[in-house]
Amino acid sequence: MRRDEIPTPALLLDLARFERNLERMAAHVRRAGKHLRPHAKTHKCPEIARRQVAAGALGVACAKLGEAEVMARAGIRGLLITTEIVPPAGLARLVRLLGEAPETLVVVDHPENARELGRAAAAGGVVANVLVDVDVGNRRTGVAPGASTVELAREVAAHRSLRLRGLQGYAGQCAHVVGWEARRAASRAAMASLMETRGLLEAAGLPVEIVAGGSTGTYDIDVELPGLTELQSGSYCVMDLDYRRIGGRSGDALTDFEMALTVVTTVISVPAADRAVVDAGFKSFATDRPFPPEAVERPGIEYGWAGDEHGRLTLRDPDRPVRLGERIEFFPPHCDPTINLYDRVWAVRGSEVEGVWEITARGRSD
Amino acid sequence: MRRDEIPTPALLLDLARFERNLERMAAHVRRAGKHLRPHAKTHKCPEIARRQVAAGALGVACAKLGEAEVMARAGIRGLLITTEIVPPAGLARLVRLLGEAPETLVVVDHPENARELGRAAAAGGVVANVLVDVDVGNRRTGVAPGASTVELAREVAAHRSLRLRGLQGYAGQCAHVVGWEARRAASRAAMASLMETRGLLEAAGLPVEIVAGGSTGTYDIDVELPGLTELQSGSYCVMDLDYRRIGGRSGDALTDFEMALTVVTTVISVPAADRAVVDAGFKSFATDRPFPPEAVERPGIEYGWAGDEHGRLTLRDPDRPVRLGERIEFFPPHCDPTINLYDRVWAVRGSEVEGVWEITARGRSD
Repeated sequence: MRRDEIPTPALLLDLARFERNLERMAAHVRRAGKHLRPHAKTHKCPEIARRQVAAGALGVACAKLGEAEVMARAGIRGLLITTEIVPPAGLARLVRLLGEAPETLVVVDHPENARELGRAAAAGGVVANVLVDVDVGNRRTGVAPGASTVELAREVAAHRSLRLRGLQGYAGQCAHVVGWEARRAASRAAMASLMETRGLLEAAGLPVEIVAGGSTGTYDIDVELPGLTELQSGSYCVMDLDYRRIGGRSGDALTDFEMALTVVTTVISVPAADRAVVDAGFKSFATDRPFPPEAVERPGIEYGWAGDEHGRLTLRDPDRPVRLGERIEFFPPHCDPTINLYDRVWAVRGSEVEGVWEITARGRSD
Repeated sequence: MRRDEIPTPALLLDLARFERNLERMAAHVRRAGKHLRPHAKTHKCPEIARRQVAAGALGVACAKLGEAEVMARAGIRGLLITTEIVPPAGLARLVRLLGEAPETLVVVDHPENARELGRAAAAGGVVANVLVDVDVGNRRTGVAPGASTVELAREVAAHRSLRLRGLQGYAGQCAHVVGWEARRAASRAAMASLMETRGLLEAAGLPVEIVAGGSTGTYDIDVELPGLTELQSGSYCVMDLDYRRIGGRSGDALTDFEMALTVVTTVISVPAADRAVVDAGFKSFATDRPFPPEAVERPGIEYGWAGDEHGRLTLRDPDRPVRLGERIEFFPPHCDPTINLYDRVWAVRGSEVEGVWEITARGRSD
């Protein structure tokens, strides 16, 4: 099948760009002496996870248990579930997952959750590998750094069915700081508390074999920290407009990784010379960022939201009209929730379709 | 299974409210002497479509061909595809659909599209039932009202493989005008052009058996138009925050239909007395509206977006703390793209789960 025969709207992955992104990140962490456990919440696609592991990743990080279940079933190992699992039914599912993939890491940020996890693991006859999730200023999940973390780490270490492996600290508030120097300053300030806390655990004789964190925005910043052992960056493999605009070490755009992900649309209405309508709206692009999709290599075209299933194009260049039935590709504002709208991604190389990969963990937020 | 055992985040449909919504709309169109072909883009769920038809609907409207294919396969008849089908492969799929569900209605807004549709239908040995899609000020799809519409209607009527059935005019710009009188004025002004155009077609001896339009916002406004034959309202069956806030004939909230749709979440982190985190973010609620989800019957709780998989709750009432593992339901801002995030909806009656309905057309924007 050819790229221009794919029914629209559809999600496309440019394989050449994607492969270069995997190689660049792999070389980067190798040079830095760190590990990579890329976040599969970005793509939810076992085939992408397999290729990340083949490029040297330890495994993949998963935002949710449901995502991890899909990855484990697809044979991916080295999983880290980055969100706390709290409901009793969730803990029971986790115990089953640990039977299949015992090295899976989970996180806790509350002593009550640590006790419930310990009880569930003991009852299921498994040992859960645990990182303490530390709030490094993201104000989402995570226990306060310092003494509170040490106390929770002791609680974890006290359970025979739990094995304390280290810490997780995700500075989500730093990931999209615009400007590399400003982002570096923000991330260093945030991660300092995690590094200090690491020292406290070591001083208390508690194991800190793993310290996980980092984003695509801070992939070349957080590796400067001697105490960080692995990166969780996710978006680097496909990129999006939101990450491109944060800027790189040199330059206003983050170009270290290439824009590999597009949504292909069809022009279905041409009501006026300066206006056209494509077949992709809120159900084809995530809308959580304050800017719209961007037409690929079509500078005269501006996309505007026009409902669930439509985008309204403003045509700024009268010398380049669009015609009915024309196909136009767009870069999505935010990759993760956009990919989560699709059941499959079309892996393309130039004008040819090389594969169709199932986004098997799509919708698995449970 | 009980409501409080459903793994979270999950989409719930309150059956008692949903059933009353169906009954109320059915009684309304009966009284008004109109037909109802409710928009299935809202729910994408064959079971809901079946119940709408059982309550008296002619069939369902579908935004896209892919949605219609799912509904036809589920045995739903009386389909209207409200968006133009342009790509040759799409026209070939439509011809196959017409073999199965020949009464299906399609729309055109361009003579080129009418010719391609005519050719495809002729080549496939089918006759396509066609409405001319008129732009009543929504500035999305649709041909200009008046002479342009008459001309396009003549083009349709000239094809032996096309059967002109009438007009569609969707005044999407009026659906969410706040205040019933203001909304009525806006809708009347917009739909006047459709009514005039209807007159022009009749004067030209062209058939106008069907004139379709209307939204949940204008469901009790557009039925005042003698020339409108059927309503396309979709959201009424489940409702959402965006429709509730537009106000009804009497009152600041549209309460004619009940809020039947919620997302149930679990509190997974309680970092501080005034803050908690639930397991639902951009991948569990559509974010296209400028306001967040609202906690059901929990006035002291404010939801804030906190990424793909998290919501950050601000707790305003110190007397009502939330506890780790507590389940909290939220009304979504916008029903259609929120439902499109889920593979199934849990149909609940009080504390019991009565069914689990597949959202079979989820993701079918093609």
